[in-house]
Amino acid sequence: MDVQPQSCVRVGAQVPDFVLPAYFPETGEQGEVRLQEYKQQGKWVVLVFYPADFTFVCPTELADYARYHSALRERGVEIIGVSTDTVFTHKAWLEAETMLRSVRYPLAADHTGAVSRMFGVYDEQSGVAMRGTFVISPEGVLQALQITAENVGRSAEETYRLIEGLQFVRNNPGVACPASWRPGEKV
Amino acid sequence: MDVQPQSCVRVGAQVPDFVLPAYFPETGEQGEVRLQEYKQQGKWVVLVFYPADFTFVCPTELADYARYHSALRERGVEIIGVSTDTVFTHKAWLEAETMLRSVRYPLAADHTGAVSRMFGVYDEQSGVAMRGTFVISPEGVLQALQITAENVGRSAEETYRLIEGLQFVRNNPGVACPASWRPGEKV
Amino acid sequence: MDVQPQSCVRVGAQVPDFVLPAYFPETGEQGEVRLQEYKQQGKWVVLVFYPADFTFVCPTELADYARYHSALRERGVEIIGVSTDTVFTHKAWLEAETMLRSVRYPLAADHTGAVSRMFGVYDEQSGVAMRGTFVISPEGVLQALQITAENVGRSAEETYRLIEGLQFVRNNPGVACPASWRPGEKV
Amino acid sequence: MDVQPQSCVRVGAQVPDFVLPAYFPETGEQGEVRLQEYKQQGKWVVLVFYPADFTFVCPTELADYARYHSALRERGVEIIGVSTDTVFTHKAWLEAETMLRSVRYPLAADHTGAVSRMFGVYDEQSGVAMRGTFVISPEGVLQALQITAENVGRSAEETYRLIEGLQFVRNNPGVACPASWRPGEKV
Amino acid sequence: MDVQPQSCVRVGAQVPDFVLPAYFPETGEQGEVRLQEYKQQGKWVVLVFYPADFTFVCPTELADYARYHSALRERGVEIIGVSTDTVFTHKAWLEAETMLRSVRYPLAADHTGAVSRMFGVYDEQSGVAMRGTFVISPEGVLQALQITAENVGRSAEETYRLIEGLQFVRNNPGVACPASWRPGEKV
Amino acid sequence: MDVQPQSCVRVGAQVPDFVLPAYFPETGEQGEVRLQEYKQQGKWVVLVFYPADFTFVCPTELADYARYHSALRERGVEIIGVSTDTVFTHKAWLEAETMLRSVRYPLAADHTGAVSRMFGVYDEQSGVAMRGTFVISPEGVLQALQITAENVGRSAEETYRLIEGLQFVRNNPGVACPASWRPGEKV
Amino acid sequence: MDVQPQSCVRVGAQVPDFVLPAYFPETGEQGEVRLQEYKQQGKWVVLVFYPADFTFVCPTELADYARYHSALRERGVEIIGVSTDTVFTHKAWLEAETMLRSVRYPLAADHTGAVSRMFGVYDEQSGVAMRGTFVISPEGVLQALQITAENVGRSAEETYRLIEGLQFVRNNPGVACPASWRPGEKV
Amino acid sequence: MDVQPQSCVRVGAQVPDFVLPAYFPETGEQGEVRLQEYKQQGKWVVLVFYPADFTFVCPTELADYARYHSALRERGVEIIGVSTDTVFTHKAWLEAETMLRSVRYPLAADHTGAVSRMFGVYDEQSGVAMRGTFVISPEGVLQALQITAENVGRSAEETYRLIEGLQFVRNNPGVACPASWRPGEKV
Amino acid sequence: MDVQPQSCVRVGAQVPDFVLPAYFPETGEQGEVRLQEYKQQGKWVVLVFYPADFTFVCPTELADYARYHSALRERGVEIIGVSTDTVFTHKAWLEAETMLRSVRYPLAADHTGAVSRMFGVYDEQSGVAMRGTFVISPEGVLQALQITAENVGRSAEETYRLIEGLQFVRNNPGVACPASWRPGEKV
Amino acid sequence: MDVQPQSCVRVGAQVPDFVLPAYFPETGEQGEVRLQEYKQQGKWVVLVFYPADFTFVCPTELADYARYHSALRERGVEIIGVSTDTVFTHKAWLEAETMLRSVRYPLAADHTGAVSRMFGVYDEQSGVAMRGTFVISPEGVLQALQITAENVGRSAEETYRLIEGLQFVRNNPGVACPASWRPGEKV
Repeated sequence: MDVQPQSCVRVGAQVPDFVLPAYFPETGEQGEVRLQEYKQQGKWVVLVFYPADFTFVCPTELADYARYHSALRERGVEIIGVSTDTVFTHKAWLEAETMLRSVRYPLAADHTGAVSRMFGVYDEQSGVAMRGTFVISPEGVLQALQITAENVGRSAEETYRLIEGLQFVRNNPGVACPASWRPGEKV
Repeated sequence: MDVQPQSCVRVGAQVPDFVLPAYFPETGEQGEVRLQEYKQQGKWVVLVFYPADFTFVCPTELADYARYHSALRERGVEIIGVSTDTVFTHKAWLEAETMLRSVRYPLAADHTGAVSRMFGVYDEQSGVAMRGTFVISPEGVLQALQITAENVGRSAEETYRLIEGLQFVRNNPGVACPASWRPGEKV
Repeated sequence: MDVQPQSCVRVGAQVPDFVLPAYFPETGEQGEVRLQEYKQQGKWVVLVFYPADFTFVCPTELADYARYHSALRERGVEIIGVSTDTVFTHKAWLEAETMLRSVRYPLAADHTGAVSRMFGVYDEQSGVAMRGTFVISPEGVLQALQITAENVGRSAEETYRLIEGLQFVRNNPGVACPASWRPGEKV
Repeated sequence: MDVQPQSCVRVGAQVPDFVLPAYFPETGEQGEVRLQEYKQQGKWVVLVFYPADFTFVCPTELADYARYHSALRERGVEIIGVSTDTVFTHKAWLEAETMLRSVRYPLAADHTGAVSRMFGVYDEQSGVAMRGTFVISPEGVLQALQITAENVGRSAEETYRLIEGLQFVRNNPGVACPASWRPGEKV
Repeated sequence: MDVQPQSCVRVGAQVPDFVLPAYFPETGEQGEVRLQEYKQQGKWVVLVFYPADFTFVCPTELADYARYHSALRERGVEIIGVSTDTVFTHKAWLEAETMLRSVRYPLAADHTGAVSRMFGVYDEQSGVAMRGTFVISPEGVLQALQITAENVGRSAEETYRLIEGLQFVRNNPGVACPASWRPGEKV
Repeated sequence: MDVQPQSCVRVGAQVPDFVLPAYFPETGEQGEVRLQEYKQQGKWVVLVFYPADFTFVCPTELADYARYHSALRERGVEIIGVSTDTVFTHKAWLEAETMLRSVRYPLAADHTGAVSRMFGVYDEQSGVAMRGTFVISPEGVLQALQITAENVGRSAEETYRLIEGLQFVRNNPGVACPASWRPGEKV
Repeated sequence: MDVQPQSCVRVGAQVPDFVLPAYFPETGEQGEVRLQEYKQQGKWVVLVFYPADFTFVCPTELADYARYHSALRERGVEIIGVSTDTVFTHKAWLEAETMLRSVRYPLAADHTGAVSRMFGVYDEQSGVAMRGTFVISPEGVLQALQITAENVGRSAEETYRLIEGLQFVRNNPGVACPASWRPGEKV
Repeated sequence: MDVQPQSCVRVGAQVPDFVLPAYFPETGEQGEVRLQEYKQQGKWVVLVFYPADFTFVCPTELADYARYHSALRERGVEIIGVSTDTVFTHKAWLEAETMLRSVRYPLAADHTGAVSRMFGVYDEQSGVAMRGTFVISPEGVLQALQITAENVGRSAEETYRLIEGLQFVRNNPGVACPASWRPGEKV
Repeated sequence: MDVQPQSCVRVGAQVPDFVLPAYFPETGEQGEVRLQEYKQQGKWVVLVFYPADFTFVCPTELADYARYHSALRERGVEIIGVSTDTVFTHKAWLEAETMLRSVRYPLAADHTGAVSRMFGVYDEQSGVAMRGTFVISPEGVLQALQITAENVGRSAEETYRLIEGLQFVRNNPGVACPASWRPGEKV
Repeated sequence: MDVQPQSCVRVGAQVPDFVLPAYFPETGEQGEVRLQEYKQQGKWVVLVFYPADFTFVCPTELADYARYHSALRERGVEIIGVSTDTVFTHKAWLEAETMLRSVRYPLAADHTGAVSRMFGVYDEQSGVAMRGTFVISPEGVLQALQITAENVGRSAEETYRLIEGLQFVRNNPGVACPASWRPGEKV
């Protein structure tokens, strides 16, 4: 794997606006995801990068995030899956893979790798994205990131917990969440 | 906060060897932590960066990691806490703060910020490290990283789960862990 | 479409050796295509670049070339289809698309676009390859090339005619083929 | 032959306007061909580069294109032959060579090689152009190109087929021509 | 110790305005020290750099300067202690160390080392400031400086004597103080 | 006064060897002072820079240091006075100025200003040295420095106190002198 | 005409060796002219650059030089005609143009313009050579040059006179030829 | 002789205006020759560079040109002799050398070599000009040049013939002079 | 002695205005000499550089110039002695050295060497000026200069003779003084 | 006059070896003067630069030096006159000008101005040398120089006096000549 140091967006910094073609399983149509629109709607965004369509671990991760989709939506959070495949392939995969029946959030096509590079998860040698999860606030600021080696799955539950904490602090300025905190617990 | 893009170690890449002064609560003495030594002993290393001694959320996080200390040790994993304070302050804080009684792992003093910069968590404006957790394999390869915005605590439990997965894949080459997997579950 | 001038291999010049992951429908396995191996076996190579798996015109072109596959093989010519998709997707598409049943030649995965760039057919904006056909002699010299705008299909028959002419001249040094010449016609 | 990589116009890109001295056999006079004028008249242009006046294969190719001259004209397409000889030589050759009696389209004189370089067919060592055919739309966009090694003739028929396809797609937006398609066939 | 030559403010030159977080023992609160404000109030400033909180010699030096605090104040002079520790640590140290009970002047936190570098006392290797005393006039001009090797204490009395001399010369233009002069002695 | 920031030797760093012409009042002869020789003899060196011969404050300072000359010599310390005048002038001044009768240590002539620049006390506009005192250990390391604005005299007594402290620490490794410490006092 | 200043061979300087394709009317064959060979045979060389085949003034100049061909040969001098046309065109022109029947010396094809540039007679805009005559001694040194504006013919007779003078001086070292001198006249 | 390639004025290009001190034998006075003035008067200019005053071949050349002086003047042509000597020397030579009695045209003093360099005839090693003749039209365009090796004289007659041809073509636009043409001969 | 080539004012060129502190023996006060003021008063200036105060040859030279002081003044010429010593030293030397009793012209203090460098007489190694005399006209143009090796005195008489000549030529434009000329002699 | 600052040989520095063509009136032959040879013979050299042959002041200066020729020779000193004229002109002038009958020392021809530039007396605008006298010791060190504005003659007598002084100091090391000193006078 080719992983030279490179510049990328950092936690606490503004994420540059980006646009990507995407397949929307809810409507069965192709379109675009635009960070700017999510920000205008006051949404949080969770970017879930995965290596490639038509592979193993990937569908279990995407399905895992699908389980938290409606709960996150209620909290004003949108999930976007991202790989370096095309929208044509995203559509074909979602239709062919039974494990992905539950996925209703869009899969974006970063076919040139430009956005993957921006978040520091692009592997120059193979042209695929590493497993990375990025939480962006409605102001477009990167609030948290997690990157994992090639073949270990992520926990959507942990992502959910993080967002709970971030939103609590946002609503209670000057208060910090202790470690492993859950809403309702004393801070 | 000053968070320009900068070069840093990436998941999948070799972590450069580093040496830091540290306070060891088990012996009550000052010394050094050296990545090279951990590697020679076949240890995994978990680096837990936190902003500053004598602050709020920090002790809860360090205490949270202290709860998993012996379990991780049995798995060949060593925890190192890191801030940009000095060893003099580390010692004073551990002695003064009752929440830190349980911390037995070393606190390293990255007073120049050089190692924090290397892992991309140094804030140039305030001179403190962001909350970042980094898992390094015995070969010195960065296997996973998590960085969180300033005032939300981390979950030591999630770190533990990740290491379980990474060690499972390492012992079972060619097998990938599905999302949210726990040892014993089917892969 | 982003089509700035760029450096690329020229007719009459040596093609740099390249290696790409590929899916081989004859065996149903993944592997690699290596220009060097074809040269060592004294083979001519026809590279057929196409934009993307799971799209329209592409399968008719690939099927068109499939019709000339055995005739070209008898002449010592190997066909390689190339797009910027992954081998996982190539496999899925060949299995799913009935029009591609007849394709027995490998589909190579230029997922980083490196080889497409080398032949001047990579579109930097969309990350896909333009429709280009390249004929390489057993010595590794580019003998002919044809590039066509996005949505017009190629003629495998014309490619076949060209190769007949190139092989005739090769076997009859000092003789040139007139325009529209066919074997058996007087030169 | 000296064929280093070099920058040149690409399919899908705007062709820079150029002006060349030319001999017009229809009037027997010298003049100039200007891309800009063809564009203003809404014409397609087919540039047929050939190595040199007073050589072998060249006249058969030029005669081959002469056969399609009137059919292409009816479709709004103008042919221009181009070599790096002067107009004086073009005139002398057309008058001396009986095979060229049928050629009525102009022969342009790219004596400095500037236009041949622009299309990537100039050989720096010998100063002659390689055999290349370039199809330019009325908007001045390069729609197709074909370059062939030194001593194999081109097929004017294939050029004709390509233009039929390009004009069909232009008149039927959103429709793509399948491979080997001929007007009247179903798309 | 890493002590390469570096650019720094010189005696006789204007000191650039700076701002540092600080702990004020008189009020028990955090705040900032700003050179510009001292200048606006017509104050002299004595900057007392010391290596680190929770160490040996440092408290004796700070206590030594505390003894001259009120005498200097009456002369319009403000003392500021500076180290590269944080304000959290400054507060903890002042509360814990009995030798520092008498310190009523602010301790500033130059945690990034920026101000220490500006005065040429930052040690790049350890990240701490060397022992340096700097006397700044109400016009912001550096009037005197003293820097001492790591482990020898300073004399607050000598600083006091210097300031007496500087203020005498300021009030008696054209008169110079002889060596070891004390107010009242003949010049 | 022209006092741009400039590079200079720092406390804790090795002082580059230097050689200067000097007048030795003990022998009444001209010669040279060489740092290297003092180091070879295991001597400490105190450099006392002053602006110019035949001026006011200067002779009081030099006389002040003369009072401590024998006490310092017993401690293995040599004093060197330095200005940017020539040795001819040094000699003339010592002979003419009655206040300097007691001066027995050499006056060095840094007529080009090279050594004054090295210690950061050269004023580019007037060509004279500022009042600076520099203490160099037998190893050639700068142990302390003091620089004072133009018209305030130094205290040789304070220099003496500093050297006592430095020599005490040198003879008692691991022990630090508290502020204002005097030999015999408890550390 | 495009005639920027450019570097070129100067009178008195060594002419770099060059090789050009050429047509030899004496044998009716194509071949090459090589400066090195002429030098090895002890020959003088007269290079006669002219603009283009199949034009007006040019044949009269070439015929004019043909009249002096045998006389020059007897003196060990070889004439070479040079234009930027190809050898194919040279052959066709010599066969077609009756005025050139008498030309028995080779016509070289500087189709890339490289040699014309070397002698400073290449016109970058039109790609043809200006009228220039260059006399090179058997040692390869440029002895004389004459360049004339586009449409005025040269005098072969003057070239002959010059060579007579150059050879005389060569055979009578230390003697200089007066102006307008002819062999037999007194020097 | 030092004759590196260098930039210089070319045939067909505009000659930069120049001014040189000169001695005018007609009036016996010093003055200046200015190209601009000749152009304003509609004159042609023939520059005759020669190596040095008080040498051999030079006077025969200058006398040779003197013979054609009045004939050229009638044609609106002015001769200027040029060497790198001073006007003082020009005057002395013309007075001393009987062969130069007939010279009535000015001798210009290019003592710095600037104009000789501009025309490419300056020898950097010896500081003298090579034998070069330059014909400039009233528009200031260089029409012809001839440069000859060091010790062979020029023919003023050939210069005269050239100017006849150039003036004929100028008066008969579109007509070219054949080689060796003389006025009255058919073109 | 360190005498690398360096840029400096040349004879015939404008001398840049300069200002230097100076001691005026006529008034016994310190002040400044300003070239601009001398020019405004229509004075000639003779700069007499000498190595150092309190040395041998120097006083004889200065006394020598003192002998011509009143004669030069009558001619509108001012003498300025210059060394790299300070004004304090100049004063002390003039008071101490009996040979300098007669010196009534100012001694300027070029303590930084800036003006000595400007006139090319500064020795970088020793920091003193070489023996140089410079004659500046009322227009500020350097008219003559003389520089002599370290230990040979100058002749004020020769300077006087030069100024006589320069003033004569100035008052008699177009007339040149022969060598060794004295006023009254025939030119 | 064009007199920009430029680098040149300085008093006290080694003069680079130089070679110049020269005319020797003693033998009436041309040859070369070489600094190296004079040094090998242990000679002093006086270079006398003058503007141009066949001008006014110059011959009086050269004649003035001729008067001291034999006296200087006895002291081992050789005079060389230098201008930027050629040797041909030097010869002609010496023969023509009666004032130069007495000149027996060589006149060197610095026709390119290279040596004049080296000594800083070349005027770039007019190409002539300014009036400069340079005294070089047998070791090749420049001992004295004098440069005078354009139209005032030099005094050979002063040059003679300088050389006497220089030779005296050379023979009596450690002794300096006072101003205006003459041999026999007390030093």
